[in-house]
Amino acid sequence: MTSQEPQQASRSRARSLDAHLSRYAARTAGMTASEIRALFSVASRPEVVSLAGGMPNLSALPMESLAGEVARLVADEGQVAFQYGSAQGVPELREQITEVMALEGISAHPDDVVVTVGSQMALDTVTRIFCDPGDVVLAEAPSYVGALGSFTAYQAEVVHVAMDEAGLIPEALRAALDSVQAAGRRVKFLYTIPNFHNPAGVTLAVSRRAEVLDICARHGVLVIEDNPYGLLGFDDQIYPALRSMDAENVVYLGSFSKTFASGLRVGWALAPHAVREKLVLASESATLCPPTFNQFLVSRYLSTHDWKGQVKKYREVYRERRDAMLSALEQHLPDGCTWTRPDGGFYVWLTVPEGIDTKAMLPRAITQRVAYVSGTAFHANGFGSRQMRLSFCYPTPERIQEGVRRLGGVLQDELELLATFGSVPQRPRLGADSPGPDTA
Amino acid sequence: MTSQEPQQASRSRARSLDAHLSRYAARTAGMTASEIRALFSVASRPEVVSLAGGMPNLSALPMESLAGEVARLVADEGQVAFQYGSAQGVPELREQITEVMALEGISAHPDDVVVTVGSQMALDTVTRIFCDPGDVVLAEAPSYVGALGSFTAYQAEVVHVAMDEAGLIPEALRAALDSVQAAGRRVKFLYTIPNFHNPAGVTLAVSRRAEVLDICARHGVLVIEDNPYGLLGFDDQIYPALRSMDAENVVYLGSFSKTFASGLRVGWALAPHAVREKLVLASESATLCPPTFNQFLVSRYLSTHDWKGQVKKYREVYRERRDAMLSALEQHLPDGCTWTRPDGGFYVWLTVPEGIDTKAMLPRAITQRVAYVSGTAFHANGFGSRQMRLSFCYPTPERIQEGVRRLGGVLQDELELLATFGSVPQRPRLGADSPGPDTA
Repeated sequence: MTSQEPQQASRSRARSLDAHLSRYAARTAGMTASEIRALFSVASRPEVVSLAGGMPNLSALPMESLAGEVARLVADEGQVAFQYGSAQGVPELREQITEVMALEGISAHPDDVVVTVGSQMALDTVTRIFCDPGDVVLAEAPSYVGALGSFTAYQAEVVHVAMDEAGLIPEALRAALDSVQAAGRRVKFLYTIPNFHNPAGVTLAVSRRAEVLDICARHGVLVIEDNPYGLLGFDDQIYPALRSMDAENVVYLGSFSKTFASGLRVGWALAPHAVREKLVLASESATLCPPTFNQFLVSRYLSTHDWKGQVKKYREVYRERRDAMLSALEQHLPDGCTWTRPDGGFYVWLTVPEGIDTKAMLPRAITQRVAYVSGTAFHANGFGSRQMRLSFCYPTPERIQEGVRRLGGVLQDELELLATFGSVPQRPRLGADSPGPDTA
Repeated sequence: MTSQEPQQASRSRARSLDAHLSRYAARTAGMTASEIRALFSVASRPEVVSLAGGMPNLSALPMESLAGEVARLVADEGQVAFQYGSAQGVPELREQITEVMALEGISAHPDDVVVTVGSQMALDTVTRIFCDPGDVVLAEAPSYVGALGSFTAYQAEVVHVAMDEAGLIPEALRAALDSVQAAGRRVKFLYTIPNFHNPAGVTLAVSRRAEVLDICARHGVLVIEDNPYGLLGFDDQIYPALRSMDAENVVYLGSFSKTFASGLRVGWALAPHAVREKLVLASESATLCPPTFNQFLVSRYLSTHDWKGQVKKYREVYRERRDAMLSALEQHLPDGCTWTRPDGGFYVWLTVPEGIDTKAMLPRAITQRVAYVSGTAFHANGFGSRQMRLSFCYPTPERIQEGVRRLGGVLQDELELLATFGSVPQRPRLGADSPGPDTA
């Protein structure tokens, strides 16, 4: 089997039938391509306005100055920066991370910080140390698609908790906990994005924060606070982190992906000390250590650049785009659509009139050269087919205007079909499926 | 709870008692600090000659030229290199990786390559998709400590298979498979390091390779081939990869940590196509994507630098150190010690006379300012207490000489105590434990 030919033959065999199918772990059955990933190839064609991706807008980064900084890093500290480091992360960076978190009222010790490969790895590692198969995890409805992926990978069951314009609803949280625990199920944690929610675009009211913490503490449930967007408030407001109000029962996840550069994959977890020890062990078996070079680069960036000024620039970039999107939505969307009005972050959450299925409509939208992510991607239970996430982070304001204009046309067409036929004719070959439970 | 004081109080409480103990997943119970990690703080004191760590020697890297390259990367491609990428990895790098593997006789398609955060992440991800709790994994005795950590994290059970100077013994492999399968247990894969083994320093004889593959195929067991050292053969020899002989039943793991720079954490897996799809999904839920910046940097390095010349330099660096270690072992170790003679890689595996426990001896060695890793770290079953791993990769030849001289003195002292008292007196407060099964 060393020649080219038999390998090619066996390759095509492998493509048509997975010879390893019987070997996979039970958890692997739940791993399926996310709707977002399946979209990428079509949505990234230049003629399509993509309101789908969550890529940060890096146009405001000072590339020239960064090029000099990274060259100095290699020249001055290459022997250490190119070498293995500790699983917990570079001490100087962990110290700086506590200073970043201090902006949100968090008082923390660098020894309780674990640097991770983006905050996705923090999320994965937290799930790894806490979740046995069948454990229940609470998450907002809707919730971050990457978190749902990690929960599924560890065979945890997600129970969604309703939100309104002021974020997670305490009464709904209490009811969900009572009902799951009454059923004899074990809830391991509440996963929440309090600020500028992905995908919902709402923020947990400050007046609700203590209550959410109190409910979780009383029910013996840990809180995982995911806060990648916290410094991106458009009115320069910074909300107090849940972790600033409860150091014992909150694991805080942070990231430099939105405040500096996502391609470096530098995030972190801040955890109670005993949990931190477990996180480091889990992290070590996952990657040995996060990339030393990237940690040194972020550390230098924080100490030599006006990083707070850069975050302010990012806020302006995103505020301008948010404004463009909100005014385009007012102008172009048909009656019966409602949407959230984010005061930070990357996303607007749109609800369309009853009868329209956003997942089924997506191929038609892409034909009209606009892409979004259907709300079903952000639910573990099939809900969300009357919703969609619109991202305003990456395209120019002009492209956003144009994209929303196209979306308005697509929705108008759907409504006309609906009025004529009583339902929108489906094109099964493009993968339309039955509506989710909340449109039924 | 927002003031400084109560947080400090609660911190010290958390240190003394883990309030979250009842919340961890079952797998977390098996996560304990590796012996190597526990050693780091003492072994890294400057007066100690550390023969313990496996850090590559980066002194031969062309830092000035790399500084220029990395600056050009930021200036030319910063907008993409600092941005999220695909979970599978940068296409151009995957293409180049197939060229690297071609040196070992592997014919592969870039589409079957998954870039990971070091090959540790490839190992973790492979285990994630294949191993249910209780599944059996075969590994050489001894085996790589990081692999054992990943297997434990997924609650797989490791069954060791004996090696000799020519690597894994086919007859022992056959016997292990028969016996585990006869007991009704499911073996998911054989994990093997065929070239310049960590920690054993031996290489699987070319004449055994087809037989090992055949045994695994007949028993329906996948082969995970871990090959970080394959290009570091001291006589410029490159052995044919197992993957070059069987494209269907081998998942190959590679790394730039030893041929370029470990602190970038760029490794990869090459897998049969259907398995590759699962690896990408698992990898996406673990980190979203490997660091784009690091992939671009490695890709540029491969295309603009004489990377094969650099690998040749590394080989010279390590050959010189291997020679220093072997001659020092001849000169300084007492009778009754035996060791492997690696023709590549980083490690010598030393067996000491009966009655000496390398784990119990370690504190006395560190007092004598030399550090190593006890053989028990490389076994999942408590074996290895008459062995130790000696790394020659990092210190200078002079330091290696001095370290081995000190080690010889420590062993001589142990032998004298043994002759006088019939056993070596233990100092329980330093954590000496009972000897492993192979000294009993």
